Amino acid sequence: MQKRMGSVETLPAPTDAVKIIDGAFSFEVQAEEVTLMDAKGRALAEDILADEYLPVFNRSGMDGYSVYAADLKGATKETPVTLPLAGEVLMGKAADTPLAEGTCVYTPTGAAVPEGTESVIMVEDTKKNDDGTISFYKDIEAGKNVILKGSDVFPGKKVLSQGRVLNIADIGSLAALGYTKVKVAKKPLVGIISTGDELIEINEQPKNGQVRDINSTTLALAVEEAGGIAKNYGIVKDEEDKLTAFVKNAIDECDMVLISGGSSMGEKDATEQIIESFGTLVLHGIRMKPGKPTIVGNVDGKPVIGVPGNPISAYFVTRVFVKKILTKMIGAQAEELFVDAILTKNVKENKQRSQFDFAKLSAKDWTTYAEPVKTQSGLMTSMAECDAFFVTLLGNGDRKEGEKVTVHPL
Amino acid sequence: MQKRMGSVETLPAPTDAVKIIDGAFSFEVQAEEVTLMDAKGRALAEDILADEYLPVFNRSGMDGYSVYAADLKGATKETPVTLPLAGEVLMGKAADTPLAEGTCVYTPTGAAVPEGTESVIMVEDTKKNDDGTISFYKDIEAGKNVILKGSDVFPGKKVLSQGRVLNIADIGSLAALGYTKVKVAKKPLVGIISTGDELIEINEQPKNGQVRDINSTTLALAVEEAGGIAKNYGIVKDEEDKLTAFVKNAIDECDMVLISGGSSMGEKDATEQIIESFGTLVLHGIRMKPGKPTIVGNVDGKPVIGVPGNPISAYFVTRVFVKKILTKMIGAQAEELFVDAILTKNVKENKQRSQFDFAKLSAKDWTTYAEPVKTQSGLMTSMAECDAFFVTLLGNGDRKEGEKVTVHPL
Repeated sequence: MQKRMGSVETLPAPTDAVKIIDGAFSFEVQAEEVTLMDAKGRALAEDILADEYLPVFNRSGMDGYSVYAADLKGATKETPVTLPLAGEVLMGKAADTPLAEGTCVYTPTGAAVPEGTESVIMVEDTKKNDDGTISFYKDIEAGKNVILKGSDVFPGKKVLSQGRVLNIADIGSLAALGYTKVKVAKKPLVGIISTGDELIEINEQPKNGQVRDINSTTLALAVEEAGGIAKNYGIVKDEEDKLTAFVKNAIDECDMVLISGGSSMGEKDATEQIIESFGTLVLHGIRMKPGKPTIVGNVDGKPVIGVPGNPISAYFVTRVFVKKILTKMIGAQAEELFVDAILTKNVKENKQRSQFDFAKLSAKDWTTYAEPVKTQSGLMTSMAECDAFFVTLLGNGDRKEGEKVTVHPL
Repeated sequence: MQKRMGSVETLPAPTDAVKIIDGAFSFEVQAEEVTLMDAKGRALAEDILADEYLPVFNRSGMDGYSVYAADLKGATKETPVTLPLAGEVLMGKAADTPLAEGTCVYTPTGAAVPEGTESVIMVEDTKKNDDGTISFYKDIEAGKNVILKGSDVFPGKKVLSQGRVLNIADIGSLAALGYTKVKVAKKPLVGIISTGDELIEINEQPKNGQVRDINSTTLALAVEEAGGIAKNYGIVKDEEDKLTAFVKNAIDECDMVLISGGSSMGEKDATEQIIESFGTLVLHGIRMKPGKPTIVGNVDGKPVIGVPGNPISAYFVTRVFVKKILTKMIGAQAEELFVDAILTKNVKENKQRSQFDFAKLSAKDWTTYAEPVKTQSGLMTSMAECDAFFVTLLGNGDRKEGEKVTVHPL
């Protein structure tokens, strides 16, 4: 593999790799309709415009009485104004008649106020008298506690933009607008192939030289978390003909293909040869640790990604680069959150590559702490109970205990 | 409702409400077995201990040559040491014979090293000569690049703790240990009832006085995000007998019940009456805005929660308190992340209650900015495109533009 990849100094930094990959592909978003209960985390495939007024009526913002503001002028605790109660608006019903001057109407929170109502004064500022009249202990400005028709939305108002990754609050807005279904980007189908003569199924007992195939599971989960559907092709022996046939089939069936491993045939790299025989090589090698031998190819517009066989490297490459590609495929406007944490241990810079490390997070006194976890290619369970990762860019220098670091939750 | 709830000064602060609710319930975690692909986000119902050695063999950490360290003593670029190549270990296979002193064996990354191997020296520090011998340009310390049997795990080593909410890295560790299934906490079944005479189905057109039922959808999604299964009972008219029958049935069928609305019968509160007729009232009213009229009851050990009808209030109460209860029900060791953001606008303190506000997040130059969003009970679509919420505790004082605030992603 070394032969084609070039020496580490010539490889693109992770940030440059993102740009190279971005420039190599363009995708057309495919849309599908889903119910609101299935819409969480999906990327909108259309702008959402209101086509009605909301609320559809002038609405009470308080449990209280609908009044003309002028009728309560000068009312205080000592000199209350008393008005006859002209009725009550029931929830879900229109008021029977307009508000007559010099009267009041009981209107609970959310009820339609009678026509003419200027303000709603809250029950707490009133008293119901034995004769059925209401005494008001405060005056009120016109417009107070009345939510006007159309003040939420009006026809044509843009509420959500194409590409928005829908959260629960967004879906609440869609429900308010009367949507029961919504057009979202179809999830790309991502084929996942594990290759390596040393691999056995998870439920098998490893013999000397063998390891369990972890990537088929972790890459599938990472793909699904990033908005794709994983199609698992299982373990393929590291024989060029066999692997070529598998990859060809996966490219035909899927929108993207991930191949983990594939460098165990000694000095040649099967994934690279396959990519070059079907399409074009976008990049081979990224100046990162772990993840250096990553390969990206373009076969008829479909990304074909060779990720390292080591599960920790494979996870990082998928979490960072495959996620970026999937985000683009579904047209999502998704930003990574910057979570700041305080390092609890020193971290030595790698002098040659940008370094990706796992961390365990803990919280105390409204501060997040990150304990860096030393992972090593052979130690799969060092991933256990990690919560985030962080990047130490090449040239960043060593990081010190107590230093602030931006972590990315797993 | 005001009658029983007491004045705002007497209500518990949100942090105290969390403690009161925590003290009122104890739960026994129910376990079920799921496959690894279904385990993400689930809380472990057992400790995970290794029952084998991993790796099961001494493993090469590099593409390179297995050697005895003493054989390379003094090797430099100028004075290389040359050794005969005794063979190659294939991936997935055991080495045929032990390493003979004064020889080397090619061992790719991840391959089993021959018995006796002390170190693996990387290909880059060697040269293959025409006669098949290998010249070494560096010496190496004993133990270098050899991952010893059992250095990842050994029988009895604890890898994951009960209550851990599994992420992809955790699941990778489970795969490494040979787990194809894992015992996790069963998802509690949460009944959701919307009540209010003003409510119509989402696909209906509101007439004067009517609003669409948003909570059946948003609360169900919030319950599922927090680890429960939502069972939707739909809209119930605000008539005590009908509501009582619905709630009774939901309590029988579910592990927890949420009732949104229920305060529109004028001055009496149906949810409170129902709770008191079947069980005991845990709290009524929280000193927060929105969310004040929240009711928590305990019916035969099951939480019955009355949340305000206003979708924004209902969401906050579910996101904060119902999530806490669900976390306890599944025995999850889950911590909220503290994400710091810079406010882009001033926020006025509420003088009477701790205040919950939505925010839109954006990222620039490795900093997260939070734009506070003014929500109002009538304006459902103000939730749209919000990304997080933040809390301004009572007594915190006004918050200023440019100030750092801890936000909680939605």
